Amino acid sequence: MSDPRPIGVFDSGMGGLTVMRALMARLPNESFLYLGDTARLPYGTKSADTVRRYALQAAQALVARGVKAVVIACNTASVSTTAVAQALAPVPVLGVIEPGAKAALAAAPDGPVAVIATETTVRGGAYRAAIRAAGGATVPIVQQACPLFVPLAEEGLVEGPIAEAIAMRYLAPVLASMPRPKAMLLGCTHYPTLKGAIAKVAGPDIALVDSAVTAADAVAALLVETGLGNTSGPASHRFLATDAPDRFAHAGEIFLGQPIDPGLVELIDLQ
Amino acid sequence: MSDPRPIGVFDSGMGGLTVMRALMARLPNESFLYLGDTARLPYGTKSADTVRRYALQAAQALVARGVKAVVIACNTASVSTTAVAQALAPVPVLGVIEPGAKAALAAAPDGPVAVIATETTVRGGAYRAAIRAAGGATVPIVQQACPLFVPLAEEGLVEGPIAEAIAMRYLAPVLASMPRPKAMLLGCTHYPTLKGAIAKVAGPDIALVDSAVTAADAVAALLVETGLGNTSGPASHRFLATDAPDRFAHAGEIFLGQPIDPGLVELIDLQ
Repeated sequence: MSDPRPIGVFDSGMGGLTVMRALMARLPNESFLYLGDTARLPYGTKSADTVRRYALQAAQALVARGVKAVVIACNTASVSTTAVAQALAPVPVLGVIEPGAKAALAAAPDGPVAVIATETTVRGGAYRAAIRAAGGATVPIVQQACPLFVPLAEEGLVEGPIAEAIAMRYLAPVLASMPRPKAMLLGCTHYPTLKGAIAKVAGPDIALVDSAVTAADAVAALLVETGLGNTSGPASHRFLATDAPDRFAHAGEIFLGQPIDPGLVELIDLQ
Repeated sequence: MSDPRPIGVFDSGMGGLTVMRALMARLPNESFLYLGDTARLPYGTKSADTVRRYALQAAQALVARGVKAVVIACNTASVSTTAVAQALAPVPVLGVIEPGAKAALAAAPDGPVAVIATETTVRGGAYRAAIRAAGGATVPIVQQACPLFVPLAEEGLVEGPIAEAIAMRYLAPVLASMPRPKAMLLGCTHYPTLKGAIAKVAGPDIALVDSAVTAADAVAALLVETGLGNTSGPASHRFLATDAPDRFAHAGEIFLGQPIDPGLVELIDLQ
């Protein structure tokens, strides 16, 4: 049994390409169809209701194009994983919150864990709940929203004095919290691009945890469990964007870690 | 003759409240209905086609609610003023580009004029064209996109070392241009909130031009010309937002310069 259909991956914009990169490395035989909702990004400052509506539309667009599973790469939209999974059943849906929570606990089993994420993710408390559910019932957790990290990453301003000053502004209260965190969960797909500046501020004794690799492991396990894996290859990847496909192909390269052929990026309308 | 219908004002989010503030001061008898498309902001990094589509939907929503004229307060969306006006005829539509260009020329009749704005506004070149059309055919013009100014303003980080370092990053090439600008047009509704940091970097010899006041003059002239003015009062104002009306009421206060009653902010869907 081998299922050659692509796996759908969806994000508010280009940040989720860091998750697709980890998926491609972990699952080299699988084809991926990536959707970036660039016409409505960012999600991280919008209400949970609006983000849920956007996530449903995006997931349905992927299913309409024949994907065998959907990965919600956007942390903010991952809060809606259960609602999206119900609407899409029987197509399986995976978010990044649960894998991220497990990765944080693996890095610091007794905590404390710091979660840095968008305003909406922090307000919703999904990481806190997922860490509790994953066995960290008594682990101390501190949360911090870092709203300027996303525009900094999109502007490519990921290192140097401005990036570090902004990181210091957000992280100082986290670092001053007692007890000092042992792991810091990068709870937004954009944040790994700022890893250098964050590490410089956080210091060497705090493990920075990126959920992309753990999410890829979870997808691999799902394919085994459901028999949806593709063993025959070759893999081929395509991209959908709701605005500015050329900009997506050009700027997306930083996040995916390899060039994106503009001919493979299709403009679509989710409304 | 007195027309009590409200004037519609529309922006991608809360920045346009700076324009509404100038309008309320200039036209105290007029009622305003403000629409912030908070579910899809920002517009400044999105393509001209997508912004035009959003602007049309917003303007039509205002007309459906009985406004007598539409002011496009968002600079990025103002590029679409002609297209929106054609779709809405006979309801008159005004953008902020032309008033802004006239204000810049009034401040520095022979230039040079620096235009700072969003990526999409700069790329479209509308301010350059409007300055040329308004009598500045030979005025030297330099343009600069400042993408991080909008998230800084929305984060309330409008002064201090981070705001100044980012202003320096964008403005250094503008200030080094020969000949040095005599006026700097703040071509985005968010930028006036950063006036302090911009002035500190630009120095006292460059006039900072905000189009809100000139735009209010243009609306006043339109009301006289069309006989649409309201002389009988009292004025009453309402607000529409496409996401998070409570956040709009709370955070909008900084831009409007007075409190916004959350009960006056209605959540609507533009799709």
